[in-house]
Amino acid sequence: MRLATLRVAGGTRAVRVDRNGYVDVGAADVGELLGRDGWADLAAAASGPTYPPDGAEFAPLVPRPGKIICVGLNYRNHILEMGRELPTFPTLFAKYADALVGATDPIALPAESQAADWEAELAVVIGASVRRATEEQAAAAIAGFSVLNDVTMRDWQYRTPQWLQGKTFEATTPFGPVLVTPDELPGGVNPTLTMTAAVDGELMQKVDTADLVFSPVALVRYASTIATLRPGDVIATGTPGGVGHAHKPPRYLAGGSRLVTEIAGIGRLDNVAVSEGWASERGWRTGPGDSCPRWTG
Amino acid sequence: MRLATLRVAGGTRAVRVDRNGYVDVGAADVGELLGRDGWADLAAAASGPTYPPDGAEFAPLVPRPGKIICVGLNYRNHILEMGRELPTFPTLFAKYADALVGATDPIALPAESQAADWEAELAVVIGASVRRATEEQAAAAIAGFSVLNDVTMRDWQYRTPQWLQGKTFEATTPFGPVLVTPDELPGGVNPTLTMTAAVDGELMQKVDTADLVFSPVALVRYASTIATLRPGDVIATGTPGGVGHAHKPPRYLAGGSRLVTEIAGIGRLDNVAVSEGWASERGWRTGPGDSCPRWTG
Repeated sequence: MRLATLRVAGGTRAVRVDRNGYVDVGAADVGELLGRDGWADLAAAASGPTYPPDGAEFAPLVPRPGKIICVGLNYRNHILEMGRELPTFPTLFAKYADALVGATDPIALPAESQAADWEAELAVVIGASVRRATEEQAAAAIAGFSVLNDVTMRDWQYRTPQWLQGKTFEATTPFGPVLVTPDELPGGVNPTLTMTAAVDGELMQKVDTADLVFSPVALVRYASTIATLRPGDVIATGTPGGVGHAHKPPRYLAGGSRLVTEIAGIGRLDNVAVSEGWASERGWRTGPGDSCPRWTG
Repeated sequence: MRLATLRVAGGTRAVRVDRNGYVDVGAADVGELLGRDGWADLAAAASGPTYPPDGAEFAPLVPRPGKIICVGLNYRNHILEMGRELPTFPTLFAKYADALVGATDPIALPAESQAADWEAELAVVIGASVRRATEEQAAAAIAGFSVLNDVTMRDWQYRTPQWLQGKTFEATTPFGPVLVTPDELPGGVNPTLTMTAAVDGELMQKVDTADLVFSPVALVRYASTIATLRPGDVIATGTPGGVGHAHKPPRYLAGGSRLVTEIAGIGRLDNVAVSEGWASERGWRTGPGDSCPRWTG
């Protein structure tokens, strides 16, 4: 099953992605759906209304996750090629929900940063509450997988030893377009999928998601030691080599850069970076209550 | 004006703290109240019902903040006494809402950590949406101040370079008991108040909150550059010297330790650390949906 959150007049709706369109499953968004007992059966049985595929606009898959848990260096070949040892513990940091945008929304490049970089990631979406999960409980708590690009302002990330401020600029993190349940993916809850990121058509990152040091199940177990994971919580599992910061000289997103992030078998994020100054001159605005810049001209 | 979130049968209520009791202001909690236009006038005009002061139990002041933004080393005399230079930028990191407990709740000591430490902090609570706030806008966006203890598992904090995992263990961060509006405090939005932390009656931390390197207004301005601050968001402004980790040998909270955190003119947190193993043996449980351990014996 594939699920998404669509923007509709007056808000958003959670939908099941069918061959012929998007079937309303009776919840405002995928986060709300996942909070209901028996969400998978509810979503599978829903029969409408149906929105046509043409013109559908994706909101962030879960618009307001209770937790977005991000993982640092987690791809084996990238760690080894850099001559580092594999880590004993996953490096965890946070991102706030205000950072999220939809699968084809603009990425808001803040005028305050000159170093916006890409980080393609496999996202785990939680579908049940778990604390100190066993292997089996962790697997069962994974509702499915999606695509996230942990777009990072490197200059702000490294202003201090803690990365948060470079990781959570408003309207910079595309997340979606869909959630795919594990039964539809090779590898199931530890999926083996090709993930890529390209900037203006140039391939920058490419990896098999099976190369993670800490697998989705291992990350759910680890994070659930610390706090209860709840429906709609998101774990962004880390990015492989090929980020712009590692180029010599470094390469970053500019106004107009097109960032395409894809995981074969899940879906594609296709976002244009828009300088906020440029945007406001042209009638885009970001304001209180907006999760992303909106065209109001 | 002083506001709090009380636990009542079936949930919580936001209340105004009056001389004779707690007056219901018509919202489920202080976070919900702050999201309403004209919240200060609404709360000031509310006339009941009134809950008696005896037996009132405080929930976390804002039970589910959209963002909890924590600040690293931010007390001038502590930085200077350690021979460091004053920082150019504030160090920011996050904590999830699952970490919060009320002003007299137990602190859940996880069996996985042997190094639970205290960090008394002045908490700023946001009362209006602001992005890229001017000085005036930042001051106006501060609903008021409260007390928070950023209890930290030092062993987990230092497992990796990112502190999050030591900072956000479930049911470890007392927050409350009340919000005090700036007009009632010396120094207003940059309050000059004596803050202390004591463990089992022994004074561990003592500082004047005016000694912050980055003031509340400066922190609101800085954080609002990154993302919109929204009603109910919380900034924990950092802790002074005197934490247990800096003792030689280090000192940590044990099961039964009583941690009292107080800011004169705001209020007092009075929490007993409870080992989770000990707790579950005695009928306390923490489970999905609980914000803190609850006695169910």
